[in-house]
Amino acid sequence: MSSDATRIGVLGGGQLGQMLGLAAIPLGLECVFYDPAPASPARMVGRHECAAWDDHDALARFADAVDVVTFEFENVPAASLEFLAARKPVRPGVRSLELTCDRVREKEFLRSVGVPVQPFAALASAQDLDLALATVGPHGVLKTRTLGYDGKGQRVVKSAEELAPAWDALGRAPCISEAFVPFDREVSVVAARALDGSTAVYPLVENLHTRGILFRSVAPARVPDALADAARAHARRVLDGLGHVGTLALEMFVADGTLIANEIAPRVHNSGHWTIRGARTSQFENHMRAVAGLPLGDTSMDGPAAMINLIGGLPATREILAIEGASAQLYGKEPRDGRKVGHINLVARTRDELDRALADAEALARRVNRLS
Amino acid sequence: MSSDATRIGVLGGGQLGQMLGLAAIPLGLECVFYDPAPASPARMVGRHECAAWDDHDALARFADAVDVVTFEFENVPAASLEFLAARKPVRPGVRSLELTCDRVREKEFLRSVGVPVQPFAALASAQDLDLALATVGPHGVLKTRTLGYDGKGQRVVKSAEELAPAWDALGRAPCISEAFVPFDREVSVVAARALDGSTAVYPLVENLHTRGILFRSVAPARVPDALADAARAHARRVLDGLGHVGTLALEMFVADGTLIANEIAPRVHNSGHWTIRGARTSQFENHMRAVAGLPLGDTSMDGPAAMINLIGGLPATREILAIEGASAQLYGKEPRDGRKVGHINLVARTRDELDRALADAEALARRVNRLS
Repeated sequence: MSSDATRIGVLGGGQLGQMLGLAAIPLGLECVFYDPAPASPARMVGRHECAAWDDHDALARFADAVDVVTFEFENVPAASLEFLAARKPVRPGVRSLELTCDRVREKEFLRSVGVPVQPFAALASAQDLDLALATVGPHGVLKTRTLGYDGKGQRVVKSAEELAPAWDALGRAPCISEAFVPFDREVSVVAARALDGSTAVYPLVENLHTRGILFRSVAPARVPDALADAARAHARRVLDGLGHVGTLALEMFVADGTLIANEIAPRVHNSGHWTIRGARTSQFENHMRAVAGLPLGDTSMDGPAAMINLIGGLPATREILAIEGASAQLYGKEPRDGRKVGHINLVARTRDELDRALADAEALARRVNRLS
Repeated sequence: MSSDATRIGVLGGGQLGQMLGLAAIPLGLECVFYDPAPASPARMVGRHECAAWDDHDALARFADAVDVVTFEFENVPAASLEFLAARKPVRPGVRSLELTCDRVREKEFLRSVGVPVQPFAALASAQDLDLALATVGPHGVLKTRTLGYDGKGQRVVKSAEELAPAWDALGRAPCISEAFVPFDREVSVVAARALDGSTAVYPLVENLHTRGILFRSVAPARVPDALADAARAHARRVLDGLGHVGTLALEMFVADGTLIANEIAPRVHNSGHWTIRGARTSQFENHMRAVAGLPLGDTSMDGPAAMINLIGGLPATREILAIEGASAQLYGKEPRDGRKVGHINLVARTRDELDRALADAEALARRVNRLS
């Protein structure tokens, strides 16, 4: 028998936890999911420790029950993480969380490892407004430094006059002001790093968001090879710079033929869901392999692949399966406006075949999706 | 939402149940597994009704909790099945079980649908011995009509004199005497049939058994196309003849360039485990789709694939994952001599690549396997 970690504690029990659990079981790994929500989708694939984030008895019980701790969302309360890190290895490390949960530190880190970012400025008090304008220019996006996701906690700023009111609208929380990037495409790289420092990088993905929520991912992105190679090299720099163990996603813009990093998700990511069917090893399996101290798996594809999110509503499963090359991934969540409740994965032998399936899948998703 | 069945009751909670459950969750299906063994591997992926086969309270509770009943092993006690069939649809139907749980009726059925079988004779009393010898010849295999698996309940007979002692050794149970087939290869076809009668047939598989237990499956089998096509047509005849709903496997011999059917497994089958990684849709997913009344998925492959069984022992997981194109499927069972505890799936782009990986995987398995 292996001496590697076999009992994996996962902080968060949403759909990412569920897909991690599905990948863990064939590897002989047992998962315990820590999540305060009783109806956590991950409860179907492991034990569910249903308790508050500040319940030290439950956290101690959780730590005792596992060999290693990981997470499926980056907004784990710092005190809970500290409590656990004192008891069991946390993978990826606390550094991956610290450098990505704050948008200013994240951008500074990206710049420090040679990954290009747009001009940005921190906004902590009214005195910072002028400097922010001078650095970033009048056209930008104002975002809270922490706790933002799916377009929440953001305001677009289109002129110098709009900056102060936008900041007011965000409750004068500590913010980052970022220069607007007139991008041609949104892309991401999903990549994993093992405990021994080896890395596995997936092909570049092209993403389409609708009202701040990911709607579609297609892999490989149709960009020049040199650009895709550069993007994947950036992801490796991020993995190594963080000393990351596990999967992460680096989201970037393509503007005028160059890459500008937008943000890091220090975990398995929605833009990597296509890997479940489209890659030799899924992002979820590679995350679990890394966390358990196992070698990473092949990230290559046998043909083009795509993913369409189902948000706020579900079609009949048979409608999904009627689409050529489609598979269904449903999370078992009650549909609610703006809530991701499943996705459609598509695999094909040619790009034309994929495009035909995409048209069908997008039409189906648009019919049922309810954004908030 | 779909009006199809979403709560699936599975009789048996072994590794086949576990893999059915893993396939069911992404489809939005919930499984309840009925199995008297507390440590059933399927308990990780669904609710486990742990009760005896004759516990009518538990069976009634199980029937109430599900929309449809299926099974992962064919030796479900007839009375339990009858009890459940009176309450909920059983898929595949009772006919699939009745015609395959008895080796004589099975062979008669195969012959009746035009699938070639070797000469055989039923053996119920001492008077049948002479007729059996006349029909089958002196070189044959004697098997109990029911309850045999993995080579258990069988005796090879090499001369007329050996028949009576072989029957004595099998406790004079009702038997089938089958002519010995000097086969070149053992092959199988895994195939599924949906509720609407449509079928999905996987590529022909070549199998290698060691002491009656499957050791290796390779797909596609290296036989002439016409033979593979004939084998797949036989599987369709079996599916239609049974009115089967779900996955089954038809095991055959190739002898002198022709096919001779050996037996039907009316369920997902070990020789189809490679489909988890090697086919667009796994045998487990297609079984669950069929049982839930959903359309079947694509059975095609992107490259050659194989499976090596781990029996009675496990290597370190990292040793499996170090093999090119390998993935691990571990069942969470305590290793015991002769017990299937996991398998290695291999995918490759070329047959040469597969053969290299096979050599590594077979060497690893032979090192740890303990047959009984």
